[in-house]
Amino acid sequence: MASIRDVAKKANVAACTVSRVLNGTAHVAPETKMKIEQAMKELNYIPNELARGMFRQRAGIIAMLVPNIRHPFFSSLAGYMEKELYECGYKLMLCSTDDDLEREQEYMNMLKSNIVDGVIMGVNSLDDSEYESFQKPLVMLDYQVNQQIPVVASNHGLGGRLAAEEFIRSGCKSVIHICGESKKKVLSYESHEELERVLQEHKIACRRVTIPWNDFDFDGYLGLAKTILQESPEIDGLMSADMPCTAFLKAAVQLGKRIPEDFCAVSYDGTYVVNMNLIDITTIKQPVKEIAKQTIAVLKSLLEGKAPRQNRYALKVSLVKGSTTRTATNSL
Amino acid sequence: MASIRDVAKKANVAACTVSRVLNGTAHVAPETKMKIEQAMKELNYIPNELARGMFRQRAGIIAMLVPNIRHPFFSSLAGYMEKELYECGYKLMLCSTDDDLEREQEYMNMLKSNIVDGVIMGVNSLDDSEYESFQKPLVMLDYQVNQQIPVVASNHGLGGRLAAEEFIRSGCKSVIHICGESKKKVLSYESHEELERVLQEHKIACRRVTIPWNDFDFDGYLGLAKTILQESPEIDGLMSADMPCTAFLKAAVQLGKRIPEDFCAVSYDGTYVVNMNLIDITTIKQPVKEIAKQTIAVLKSLLEGKAPRQNRYALKVSLVKGSTTRTATNSL
Repeated sequence: MASIRDVAKKANVAACTVSRVLNGTAHVAPETKMKIEQAMKELNYIPNELARGMFRQRAGIIAMLVPNIRHPFFSSLAGYMEKELYECGYKLMLCSTDDDLEREQEYMNMLKSNIVDGVIMGVNSLDDSEYESFQKPLVMLDYQVNQQIPVVASNHGLGGRLAAEEFIRSGCKSVIHICGESKKKVLSYESHEELERVLQEHKIACRRVTIPWNDFDFDGYLGLAKTILQESPEIDGLMSADMPCTAFLKAAVQLGKRIPEDFCAVSYDGTYVVNMNLIDITTIKQPVKEIAKQTIAVLKSLLEGKAPRQNRYALKVSLVKGSTTRTATNSL
Repeated sequence: MASIRDVAKKANVAACTVSRVLNGTAHVAPETKMKIEQAMKELNYIPNELARGMFRQRAGIIAMLVPNIRHPFFSSLAGYMEKELYECGYKLMLCSTDDDLEREQEYMNMLKSNIVDGVIMGVNSLDDSEYESFQKPLVMLDYQVNQQIPVVASNHGLGGRLAAEEFIRSGCKSVIHICGESKKKVLSYESHEELERVLQEHKIACRRVTIPWNDFDFDGYLGLAKTILQESPEIDGLMSADMPCTAFLKAAVQLGKRIPEDFCAVSYDGTYVVNMNLIDITTIKQPVKEIAKQTIAVLKSLLEGKAPRQNRYALKVSLVKGSTTRTATNSL
């Protein structure tokens, strides 16, 4: 493959003159420019994006770290991020950490070098100091490091309240909610806290079940659901992420419970998988597209050297009613 | 940020000596090496991966083009590809083309430069000459360009036959199958051809319905399913990808059909979303993990300059029985 030196030799100019033409960094006489372009054409020269990136100090790539790309929430989010980035001329490099601390650290070390221009963090296993000392534009998802690094998240408090109100309207007496375990105080915990607060206010029993974070094993969830529903037959309401929610619905049906008469469920996230069930699932829908739009807008201002307008961006979730809750009675 | 020149100045050596240490390309005296490493530490020097990539002629990145990363088949596949690549020290750059020809072309132009070491093509909208003239290691998924470019795909012919046999065992009389429209003869068509061949052999009616390729709109599928099932009440069997399959099952139930007594369904792909339904869906499962393993093994041999052992790799699909078919009667 022809190199910049081959082009320079053929055009009878210095290699740095070819660089100048490639990067538009300084004036080059029009006839020289023409000679160089002619030489490039004849040699079928393909500019080395790596080398050009180095000159321009811009790789044109944004990395996004997610715990698991198979997860429909993260694959949907990554899809929208990719679309938004494409609009502003950036490519997405997707890194799936498998929720593994060591792997997240390795990715972060790689990203400190000039391979990407900025990072979207959908994971947060490392010490906060790792994110604080990161020298490039960085936007966190769902976790607040400090007052400097911008964070984009759904308004999870609202999500918890909307779910609680739906259980109250459905006349539920004993609600459980499934919560991923994290060492950090992630923002999605606010949905669980608000659910508990509102249900307690209404004297409705409420139990939190903690499971490994971002686990993604349907059969595991189905086993857990059967055990819980058999041990605690009084449970008549559930809030959880989409996948465990479908597992609880399946377990409830297999145990002879009628939905929604005996058992109500509100799924949290509202990815496309909830549509794909035989039954319409009541869901708290995270605005995935808007999260992507907001994240890229914030990242773009950081890339342009501007400070973001605010530190935390809270995007509105919504309740989508299905047939897994009983909302005919307006008891609120 | 400290540059390679700053390090050279501080260590009192030439810049190319620093490069030698960074890249291990030639012998450097131990005391010189120590001086340089000391200078790097003091200046907090972070090696520029872009620059190092240029020296080494290795970017450490593999691109994968997919039509839609939200699609559970592609997000699962990308997840496994990423894992396999990580094991051999490569990162995955995921590019979602939205099934858009222009966008695929733009990505291909970018990838011709040195930004990636190899490409996994999960799309195929361009002229075959584009893939044939691509100068880097390239593995195609599900589409055979020529006898040179290796292609990895499921054994779709087997998939079609397994589905046909399941309809025969279920006593179905009129089967439809939903097929994505493509200008190219993609290998997944073999499942449709084989389904038709086997059903015709058994004098079972079989109709192919063609829809836009890789469309991903559940409500659209649900509307289509209702129309078809209302217009053709004799239909008692369906084969389609996971998402349209769940739409047909939902439509059939809403139209008062009993599953599997009145209507049987076999989903094709068998991604995790079929588990998440209230009903266990009979499915032809593509071996996503094995597809990823085989693709990366072939890509790795290309990266090492070796010719692949064969041109087409066909991986075995399997039938997973659920309760959407009637297989008690062993009529085969």
